[in-house]
Amino acid sequence: MPTYNPPLRDMQFVMHEVLNVVDDFKQIPKYAEMDVETINAVLEEGGKFATEVIFPLNIPGDAEGCTIDQTTHAVTTPKGFKEAYKTYVEGGWAALGCDPEFGGQGLPLVVNSMFYEMLNSANQAWTMYPGLTHGAYHALHTYGTPEQQQTYLHKMTSGEWTGTMCLTEPHCGTDLGLMRTKAEPQADGTYKITGNKIFISAGEHDMADNIIHLVLARLTDAPPGIKGVSLFVVPKFNVNKDGSLGSRNGIYCGGLEHKMGIKANATAQIVLDGAVGTLIGQPNKGMQGMFVMMNSARLGVGNQSLGLTEVAYQNALAYAKDRLQMRSLTGPKAKDKPADPIIVHPDVRKMLLTAKAYAEGGRMLQAYCAMLLEKEHGHPDEKVRTESGELIAMLTPIAKAFLTDNGHIATNACMQVFGGHGFIKEWGMEQFVRDNRINMIYEGTNTIQSLDLLGRKILGNNGATLKKFGKLVGQLVEEEGVNEKMAEFITPIAILGDQMTKFTTEIGFKGFQNPDEVGAAAVDYLRVAGHLVFGYFWARMAQVALREISAAEKEGRPADPFYGAKLQTARFYFGKLFPETATLMRTARAGSKVLMDTDLALA
Amino acid sequence: MPTYNPPLRDMQFVMHEVLNVVDDFKQIPKYAEMDVETINAVLEEGGKFATEVIFPLNIPGDAEGCTIDQTTHAVTTPKGFKEAYKTYVEGGWAALGCDPEFGGQGLPLVVNSMFYEMLNSANQAWTMYPGLTHGAYHALHTYGTPEQQQTYLHKMTSGEWTGTMCLTEPHCGTDLGLMRTKAEPQADGTYKITGNKIFISAGEHDMADNIIHLVLARLTDAPPGIKGVSLFVVPKFNVNKDGSLGSRNGIYCGGLEHKMGIKANATAQIVLDGAVGTLIGQPNKGMQGMFVMMNSARLGVGNQSLGLTEVAYQNALAYAKDRLQMRSLTGPKAKDKPADPIIVHPDVRKMLLTAKAYAEGGRMLQAYCAMLLEKEHGHPDEKVRTESGELIAMLTPIAKAFLTDNGHIATNACMQVFGGHGFIKEWGMEQFVRDNRINMIYEGTNTIQSLDLLGRKILGNNGATLKKFGKLVGQLVEEEGVNEKMAEFITPIAILGDQMTKFTTEIGFKGFQNPDEVGAAAVDYLRVAGHLVFGYFWARMAQVALREISAAEKEGRPADPFYGAKLQTARFYFGKLFPETATLMRTARAGSKVLMDTDLALA
Repeated sequence: MPTYNPPLRDMQFVMHEVLNVVDDFKQIPKYAEMDVETINAVLEEGGKFATEVIFPLNIPGDAEGCTIDQTTHAVTTPKGFKEAYKTYVEGGWAALGCDPEFGGQGLPLVVNSMFYEMLNSANQAWTMYPGLTHGAYHALHTYGTPEQQQTYLHKMTSGEWTGTMCLTEPHCGTDLGLMRTKAEPQADGTYKITGNKIFISAGEHDMADNIIHLVLARLTDAPPGIKGVSLFVVPKFNVNKDGSLGSRNGIYCGGLEHKMGIKANATAQIVLDGAVGTLIGQPNKGMQGMFVMMNSARLGVGNQSLGLTEVAYQNALAYAKDRLQMRSLTGPKAKDKPADPIIVHPDVRKMLLTAKAYAEGGRMLQAYCAMLLEKEHGHPDEKVRTESGELIAMLTPIAKAFLTDNGHIATNACMQVFGGHGFIKEWGMEQFVRDNRINMIYEGTNTIQSLDLLGRKILGNNGATLKKFGKLVGQLVEEEGVNEKMAEFITPIAILGDQMTKFTTEIGFKGFQNPDEVGAAAVDYLRVAGHLVFGYFWARMAQVALREISAAEKEGRPADPFYGAKLQTARFYFGKLFPETATLMRTARAGSKVLMDTDLALA
Repeated sequence: MPTYNPPLRDMQFVMHEVLNVVDDFKQIPKYAEMDVETINAVLEEGGKFATEVIFPLNIPGDAEGCTIDQTTHAVTTPKGFKEAYKTYVEGGWAALGCDPEFGGQGLPLVVNSMFYEMLNSANQAWTMYPGLTHGAYHALHTYGTPEQQQTYLHKMTSGEWTGTMCLTEPHCGTDLGLMRTKAEPQADGTYKITGNKIFISAGEHDMADNIIHLVLARLTDAPPGIKGVSLFVVPKFNVNKDGSLGSRNGIYCGGLEHKMGIKANATAQIVLDGAVGTLIGQPNKGMQGMFVMMNSARLGVGNQSLGLTEVAYQNALAYAKDRLQMRSLTGPKAKDKPADPIIVHPDVRKMLLTAKAYAEGGRMLQAYCAMLLEKEHGHPDEKVRTESGELIAMLTPIAKAFLTDNGHIATNACMQVFGGHGFIKEWGMEQFVRDNRINMIYEGTNTIQSLDLLGRKILGNNGATLKKFGKLVGQLVEEEGVNEKMAEFITPIAILGDQMTKFTTEIGFKGFQNPDEVGAAAVDYLRVAGHLVFGYFWARMAQVALREISAAEKEGRPADPFYGAKLQTARFYFGKLFPETATLMRTARAGSKVLMDTDLALA
């Protein structure tokens, strides 16, 4: 059975030593009083909830899965899921990052994000039930009418009701313009909605009193394509004026999918049979609200893989220290034992450190993104708001695709550390691999993320946002360029930063002549950009670590070994993972011809 | 539901157009009469068996799995497995590559290997029941006494009895020197064997009348470690002098593992409770026989991933042509449809071609290895025998690790082509990923393969074998260096060949001072070597394709589009996959320090 320890020390390092989030909060009025102690205390408690309440349900939930009663359309979640959710609601966890106006605790997103990292480590499938609520909450909070907000947001904040995003249909996933679900306007201002949705995570369950579905559909007179899609709120139970639950609405679960992973989360086929809904925002502008949900969900998916990377790492590390097999290549290390623990082997270390470096880099990126979102929405300086908005737009597809691809690499590496035992269910490692696998697909496949990044976020404004991130890298290079100890961390990002500029211009130029060049380079490009971002954060983490070690030296006291560990992991990252960029730039430059001139090969 | 079409045309290309196996057979007395027609006819029939008999059992077998009756220790395989096996035995398929002396058909290994590729595409879990027999057969055929051979080989050849390899114990997988299973000599020359084995594939089942276990154990007076391990044959049912089945032997299944994949294959915990066995080969020399089984099994595991890569590719290709979603970046292609088929997108093509290039390269390597084995054992010229033996020893870890890692990349890419549907069991794609995952682990993890390659097979003889392979590359470069049309295929392998020489010397030198340098470089090194081998084969395939296209041109007839497809795939391979070597050499050169100086990080 796997174990899990919330990485609180590393979270504190990221927030308080690298990003100094409390300094930022001082400039955001609603967080002016936020302090280090409160943040740490909340996360400590949150870690206990994750570890004690939902982690023990992870393997049993996978084995049991969800079941549907085909007569009543009721879905039963695995044993213990409902009770754990009750504990979650009673503990006030659902309200953590929500608006106090609707009963929320108003804690910063970075705290909620780290709380969710722990939930994801403990049980991704369970976490998706409350997790999906956040996207629906944000869309209603941003575009809902005051009446809709009053009707729904209090109960979604408390967690008594959960939410979903109903986008996909059997014939359209990526291409929502093909959508067929219809919304007919009624005399009372509501709409009757009819259609079939699939792949609706947490789409039906027994954990909450009501489920608030956010549904994309076409008005009867809508123009074709993506410009004719509107967003509706469609509750499972209609809500009476007094807030009590009314009649059962015509939206139900037609079946559950049988999946590779996240088996304990109900992936529902949702049938809308004249369901009553109300419009969110403007007619035919449904994609606006959809993107509010989607951007939140994309960061959330990156966070899922971060959680899985961390928990996989912790267990692989424990196993590598415990499992005795063969001797070190440089001679016996554990002479009193029949063999050495496998952690003495270089490649075992490589697998472990891959997961560690990706987890810690991912944690930095998630926290940084959460802070950008706060600044985008709450900073008094408009310039900061705009620039934060641009940066988060660029970093979101990276946080989604790079973190989930890294999660795939890391969970597989950690499973591999276990040898044959990694393949056996009881050890729990293969479940991390299976659960992570969906993260590379849903909320926009990683190919879609790469096209969003390169096509829209980078080339779409002629590299202006990339230059802004490049400035941050440049500042660090400037700051630390003369520091000999930092050279090993600064040189690679300085070089890659320069290469990226050239590389981007080159692709932009080729893409101008042939758009397939953008499509051919995008996936490679995203990983290069991911390494530039991770390289930057690893350099910043090394900077803090070196500063602390040097301060300890000056004061004649031993430095906290945490900082030495950071430096070692940073060195590993730059030595063994970052050089992936060499190949990625070559394969991107190999262009589109070897892909597109292949009609005979793909006949 | 997935589909499968045996890639007969490509198999014929590999055998008859690139390798010209019949020419080689003319020099091997036992195959002197072998002709193209016989080989093709056997494979055509074999393809029908795979497609019609076992492919339909693949998804149901995964869903049902194996069950054990804890009272009788009997294992029941999924519905239809037993009947399919009966068809297999009755069709004479078990005897295909076996020695005519014991009732075998004496067909060349390359035919058996391609037959098995198709079986693996159709149903890896089922295929492991007959597949495991081959290793046991080889060990008995090589080291068994005439009596053992008479007792067991006829029925194993016919397939009436299957075989296993009982190596692993709970505390020892890689490190067989830690083995505890004991063998006590008896007055009648037999041994009483007692111990616990785990992870025994096809270890117990209801498909055959008897199961012939090959068991590693220690004699009571054995020296410690790997030099005190002996090999025994331990039948499930003792065999009477007349060949009939006697009493039930004290070897039984104590339990079945719950696994990520190959769920329809019984992965058995095997209890030996004073089981009667006879010694194979010399006392304490069990590893010799073990390696006969293991080398055969390692090529077999590579073949499993080849099969999965091929079938995953075929299904992803069909889906990509069928699924309509978004428009091509260069403007609509299927104007009469609501969207273009997703095959218009560059990255979808990249995912498909990755699988195709790895499948076709893998098929070349498997066939080449099969021919080397024939030459090693059957060529009249001793020099050819020795050199073939050296080459196959070097290529075996590459065939195992490179093909299974490629299978991981390819099956995941093909699953990704399906978007959300790839995650759903009914489509069958996620099963290919799960089934493939064990291939990177068993029969020696891929890390172990890399240490075997670099430490033993390359540095162990100061690069002599690598030089021999380098000569083959050199010959091709010499032959085609002046052919302008071949430059795009020849230049990269010429460069990589030179780099490999330097790279190997460098690691050898560093490893001499610090053995961890070998361990730190080995996994990267194996993939570089894999690309040198694949690059060589892709160049040879391109050579044949160009020759055929040019012949057609001269004769004024259209060339078979098969050759154009080969060239396009070769160009893709060199453009998008081969450049991985750039990063691999960098990360290998980053050395062992960033891995080993990490005690704080891995505390």
